[in-house]
Amino acid sequence: MTVSAIPASDRNATPLLLRAVRGFHVGGEITELRDLPVSSLAAVPGGPARTSDPNGHYLVGQLYAQSFELVAPRFTCPLLLWHGGGLTGACWEDTPDGRPGWHDRFMRAGWDTVVSDAPERGRAGWARYPEIVPDVPEHRTLEAAWGMFRVGPPGGFHADPAQQETFPGQLFPVEAFEQLGRQFVARWASGGALARRAYAALLTRTGPAVVVAHSQGAVLAQQVALDLPELIQALVLVEPAGAPGDNPAEAAPIPTLVVWGDHFADSPLWRDSYRPEAERWLEARRAAGHPVTVLDLPAEGVRGNSHMPMMDRNSDAVAARVQAWLERLDLG
Amino acid sequence: MTVSAIPASDRNATPLLLRAVRGFHVGGEITELRDLPVSSLAAVPGGPARTSDPNGHYLVGQLYAQSFELVAPRFTCPLLLWHGGGLTGACWEDTPDGRPGWHDRFMRAGWDTVVSDAPERGRAGWARYPEIVPDVPEHRTLEAAWGMFRVGPPGGFHADPAQQETFPGQLFPVEAFEQLGRQFVARWASGGALARRAYAALLTRTGPAVVVAHSQGAVLAQQVALDLPELIQALVLVEPAGAPGDNPAEAAPIPTLVVWGDHFADSPLWRDSYRPEAERWLEARRAAGHPVTVLDLPAEGVRGNSHMPMMDRNSDAVAARVQAWLERLDLG
Repeated sequence: MTVSAIPASDRNATPLLLRAVRGFHVGGEITELRDLPVSSLAAVPGGPARTSDPNGHYLVGQLYAQSFELVAPRFTCPLLLWHGGGLTGACWEDTPDGRPGWHDRFMRAGWDTVVSDAPERGRAGWARYPEIVPDVPEHRTLEAAWGMFRVGPPGGFHADPAQQETFPGQLFPVEAFEQLGRQFVARWASGGALARRAYAALLTRTGPAVVVAHSQGAVLAQQVALDLPELIQALVLVEPAGAPGDNPAEAAPIPTLVVWGDHFADSPLWRDSYRPEAERWLEARRAAGHPVTVLDLPAEGVRGNSHMPMMDRNSDAVAARVQAWLERLDLG
Repeated sequence: MTVSAIPASDRNATPLLLRAVRGFHVGGEITELRDLPVSSLAAVPGGPARTSDPNGHYLVGQLYAQSFELVAPRFTCPLLLWHGGGLTGACWEDTPDGRPGWHDRFMRAGWDTVVSDAPERGRAGWARYPEIVPDVPEHRTLEAAWGMFRVGPPGGFHADPAQQETFPGQLFPVEAFEQLGRQFVARWASGGALARRAYAALLTRTGPAVVVAHSQGAVLAQQVALDLPELIQALVLVEPAGAPGDNPAEAAPIPTLVVWGDHFADSPLWRDSYRPEAERWLEARRAAGHPVTVLDLPAEGVRGNSHMPMMDRNSDAVAARVQAWLERLDLG
């Protein structure tokens, strides 16, 4: 039979010289459940039934992180990649159409990197509901993502690609939209406080870092910057889905880059809520003298980016713009 | 303030020279939900409420994999690491007490590696229940893991470490047992068929490979070996939690190593069910002339291993035994 190899990487790329790859969990706390009924299940296919007793102790609210330590990093602090809502750290790896993602690009640019899964997502694990987490999770449909990620107008997704309605000049690799759907994980609307604490635990572990954060993760990054300003050297907010509920006067003057894609006018949620909320916060910070830079791609003539610039066809070019901004900070 | 650095890796270790690190999803299929009620939620902390419509299309049953391609692998096929029930690929990374795990050790031994999360676990994502998956998931308690992983007798866990009952000579790093609990993820008893298909998709993508699989994953590996024998060069079954329900006469003569820890006599589930079931299958294969090797650690004088030899204090030594067996296969 014919088998295909591991996806072809760029065979001409410079090798990555790593001291180590580590994977670990930080944050979270122990909790206990009592007085729940005991059941029986066959946990291995075809295997014997065993007792399943849900009463006992669980770890809740931890975060998973994977660190890549270069032998010769060009920068003294690591670069942390924080995913958005309904996604995991995998969103920074291969793009849905199989190109190397931003994680690869920032490692090759000379950063020690840390890619994480927020509490309740991916390798961080999620807790029983409603016994530990009170509310039910949301599983994102391809329909919802199509509008939310501004691939096309709300309602523009169709299972038959020929009937999909896509924004003109769309740079998301639409032919791989179903592959993006394989990355989706459940998320809880109530999880913000857990995530905020766990990201603080991560930064306490890594030490001062650059944080590159997407969508909901970019809101969390701004919240954690309020809690631990001394541990964030720079913030790169990729399409932040709003702003903290806190007072922007409490924010520290951390160098901040915000990256915006295209087609906001055709997305009521982004046009009327998330983006203006984010901009009010950032404008207040700029008015207070903070170094806030806006990379508004369409305003600079780069049209067609979706909510997922790290996956769009020009993902390398956008990463290079972010990297150029970081280099100008002279973080050493 | 004082901050601790990223966990100290072995600063004297030879650097890892990698061509690429890739992350991707394979397998799974699209499904649709209809006629469910629409709700409203504030998906970003403090942010505006938005509509959450669960009706639409989802990808279900995919598997997440992360591949590490060496510049100069010593072997012509990759080594795949498959986790056990209630865990993810993270179980092969750092040990709970912070030492490098088997993934690091096998990379440094010269293997291209692929670390995966089975469907419904970790970065693979899980589907809505009961609408898509019929049954409820199991979240493992620390109490259940204590007995199941043979750290001590069933009922031997206590939240106060001073009151825990541990098997004598235990090699699991008991002081880090709570850290192990941070790795636990929900699992579904019904998920075996999904996982079997997804692992087949992974092997079809990677091509012929060595599979190192733990516990429930080792049962799945034996099932996938029935489906795609030409794609498995060797099987390393670490504490297999039983055997396929199929007929062992249908198995191919794939070189197989089975690794057993200690303290089976004090675990009724392992002593009376999982281990004898695994041994009957392997004995039938050996009787048919298959190259099946047993590494029974206590029988060789290595006492005290738990169900998690990749995390036990002698994890490096056990990995070295596995590597020595693989080298004798002369896989090239």
